[in-house]
Amino acid sequence: MNHKFVLKILGYVLIFEGLAMVPPALASMYYSNGGDVVAAFAVSAAVLFVIGAVLARQKPKTAAIYSKDGFAIVAFSWISISLFGALPFYLSGKVGSLVDCVFESASGFTTTGATILTELSGFPEGLVLWRGLMNWLGGMGVLVLLVAVLPSMGARTSHIVKAEAPGPSMGRFLPKMSDTAKMTYLIYVSLTAVMLICLLVTGMPMFDSLVHSLSTAGTGGFSSLNHGLSGYANPAAEVVVTVFMLLFGVNFMLYYMTLTGNVKRALKSEELRLYLLLFAGAVAIITVDITSFYSGNFLVALRLSVFQTASVISTTGFASANYDLWPDLSKMILLVLMLVGSCANSTGGAVKQIRVLILIKSVRNHIKHIVHPRAVSQITIDGKNVDDGTVREVQIFFFAYVFILFVTCLIISFDSMDIFSTFSAAVASISNIGPSFGQVGPMLNYSALTALSKITLTICMLLGRLEIFPLIVILAPSVWSKKSL
Amino acid sequence: MNHKFVLKILGYVLIFEGLAMVPPALASMYYSNGGDVVAAFAVSAAVLFVIGAVLARQKPKTAAIYSKDGFAIVAFSWISISLFGALPFYLSGKVGSLVDCVFESASGFTTTGATILTELSGFPEGLVLWRGLMNWLGGMGVLVLLVAVLPSMGARTSHIVKAEAPGPSMGRFLPKMSDTAKMTYLIYVSLTAVMLICLLVTGMPMFDSLVHSLSTAGTGGFSSLNHGLSGYANPAAEVVVTVFMLLFGVNFMLYYMTLTGNVKRALKSEELRLYLLLFAGAVAIITVDITSFYSGNFLVALRLSVFQTASVISTTGFASANYDLWPDLSKMILLVLMLVGSCANSTGGAVKQIRVLILIKSVRNHIKHIVHPRAVSQITIDGKNVDDGTVREVQIFFFAYVFILFVTCLIISFDSMDIFSTFSAAVASISNIGPSFGQVGPMLNYSALTALSKITLTICMLLGRLEIFPLIVILAPSVWSKKSL
Repeated sequence: MNHKFVLKILGYVLIFEGLAMVPPALASMYYSNGGDVVAAFAVSAAVLFVIGAVLARQKPKTAAIYSKDGFAIVAFSWISISLFGALPFYLSGKVGSLVDCVFESASGFTTTGATILTELSGFPEGLVLWRGLMNWLGGMGVLVLLVAVLPSMGARTSHIVKAEAPGPSMGRFLPKMSDTAKMTYLIYVSLTAVMLICLLVTGMPMFDSLVHSLSTAGTGGFSSLNHGLSGYANPAAEVVVTVFMLLFGVNFMLYYMTLTGNVKRALKSEELRLYLLLFAGAVAIITVDITSFYSGNFLVALRLSVFQTASVISTTGFASANYDLWPDLSKMILLVLMLVGSCANSTGGAVKQIRVLILIKSVRNHIKHIVHPRAVSQITIDGKNVDDGTVREVQIFFFAYVFILFVTCLIISFDSMDIFSTFSAAVASISNIGPSFGQVGPMLNYSALTALSKITLTICMLLGRLEIFPLIVILAPSVWSKKSL
Repeated sequence: MNHKFVLKILGYVLIFEGLAMVPPALASMYYSNGGDVVAAFAVSAAVLFVIGAVLARQKPKTAAIYSKDGFAIVAFSWISISLFGALPFYLSGKVGSLVDCVFESASGFTTTGATILTELSGFPEGLVLWRGLMNWLGGMGVLVLLVAVLPSMGARTSHIVKAEAPGPSMGRFLPKMSDTAKMTYLIYVSLTAVMLICLLVTGMPMFDSLVHSLSTAGTGGFSSLNHGLSGYANPAAEVVVTVFMLLFGVNFMLYYMTLTGNVKRALKSEELRLYLLLFAGAVAIITVDITSFYSGNFLVALRLSVFQTASVISTTGFASANYDLWPDLSKMILLVLMLVGSCANSTGGAVKQIRVLILIKSVRNHIKHIVHPRAVSQITIDGKNVDDGTVREVQIFFFAYVFILFVTCLIISFDSMDIFSTFSAAVASISNIGPSFGQVGPMLNYSALTALSKITLTICMLLGRLEIFPLIVILAPSVWSKKSL
């Protein structure tokens, strides 16, 4: 591993995090959140600047990095930002134990949106904005942002971007990875801004509009209101959030295609079609299933079904209804969608549509192989061959995902919530949804869990957001060796 | 597909099933179960002999068969024996609807052991014995038996045996597949006989001993008693059943090694070690976890933990305690073991230890590949390379397993049991366990489900026992073509 280079980049990341605390610090002054909160941000940012500056002064002999360095940079960066991101909560004294603060911070950056806060009304605006910002930064990735604004790192940034970006492969739509990162963030910022304007138009107050835009964009789901949007009697805002949740779950490459005039090709994307098909199918079945639950009011059922389905498939985690009370079939559909999740290269989480598509196609290929053993058939997506290495990686990822899911279940079983709440908490954490079913349902939160469970779920959220391997790779002893390969 | 050959073999299988009904018919006479039951067996056997004889008279132009023919033979045979195996239940009028009868029959042959019977005391002995026999025949496979007794089929029987045998590959321990099949059944019959003698020695009555030997050997779990062994105050019998459940979950190839003096090699089997490790680990944790539940009585906790764990890991499904009332951690461990299951080439079901081992090793290999991209590393089991095709097959199987599990969950959700009962019913069906948790817990049964759920679970049990692909392959239109390849 190129230790010095890894530390240098980590330094940049921490400085970035410090800078990201400036807006919430200003907000806490503007809203008179009190000296505690302002001081908490000031001290946190100062700590980040000092440590970041020390690390950033490292002078690596070479900027040559390999795949494993990319994974290490991503792993250490995310562990660090989650730990330091907890500082404002902890120092302000508004959140409680350090474990709770780290849980909230990791939940923010990983765009899970699971909270240990029991009451948001009266909670300092500075900290609420910080939660929204964490969702936003984590959504598209802090290292992708770093590559976008600091293109002259001199290293093969593709190793870093690939390790952080969600999905089996971050296709670059421009020849240079730094340009791709820039373009991604340009689209991201623009879409977030459009959403903010739309929410303001619906009459939502400025602060709430901003927080909801940030957390929807990151598909995080941290709200400025108790129980998210279910407290809002504003159907127009609900429509805006629904549409944007879905939009932020789409592969950003398709937006680039659209911008460059390839709308047709974008609309033909097989991943997009599966995403929309699953969304529409789920909405149709759930609407029928819950209509009697809402006294036969089909329109209410449709509205709630659309919102909840969009929230779950995009892995945002907002709730406009207590879907935990819905019939089993609807709950089971939502649970399955939680595992499938959004498209690759979106801000959403979970297994991802493209992986499910590849896995289904590999089953179909296997059947073909049994029937025609001598025929060679290749998996294709959008008319292009998917190479065997990618298919293997997807298959390995899928097993690792299920494996970690069950290990998490076993550990948090000590909590004795009830076995389905346990399972759904693990699903919601690894898939970065947030609210789930039962004792961690949409109208409840994670505050009642033991420290052991909170720590486990914190790790699980990071594993889910980083798609497992970066965090495991740094455990391999040989990655620490100074030899380049 | 070689239609005529497939039909001919199907004919043999049906004649076999007719013959298998003779012992239960005699039992029903011996125990004076009444004319209804005797007639039911006589008519069922007659139907099987007639249809079987007609099919067996097919004269295929060639005995050349391919992989797909093997899959087709296995699929059609298992669907047929499950349907015809329901006849004695249905014709006797003792079981109820045809759907219930088919469920019970498929549950028997697939060695699931899930029952729709609510009361076994007073249930005709002939039918009880039939249930035990189905477990026994299904355990090691009817086609393996056919190949063992009719070696001169003239075809490449390996295609048939491979399609039926559990696990990623039925290694033949003798050069000829028919000899391997013979040896497998020799070991199977011997172990069953030893178990019968042991049970008789413990003082269990002859009939109960016979039924429990048959259903333990097949890891089926159909008992002659309500709630299986929990009604028996016979600790010695409990020990015998525990030991044999574990033994029948072991790869039979290891018994052959032991018989031929390779005890050391057998004991070094990585799959066996994982199986025993998971068993011992689970017993240790569950014992500690449930001790307070049994008023601090460590020995009772240990006894019940050993029995239940052995039952679940071998996918037998006997219960000596209502583990549905145990703490979450213990339940979660049992649930995970239900999914993992026994060793390949045993009579047990589920994903299988060897597959889990290969999957874990493929994750480890992937990490290695990230750290050392140029190094080539091969997965090995017991010092031998596992070829890429097998690894791929295992990965595809794993996804297909999870996929079918969730599709089953979605369909049986209509039943509105409660979402965890739904999930555990699906797990217990695809993994061929039988009793599960909640509304299909060890002290309950599947009688209350709707016909839709029973049919779905019937298909799910068959998919689990045949390891998915045979049943899917026959749905591919091109498999029906007469062209050989």
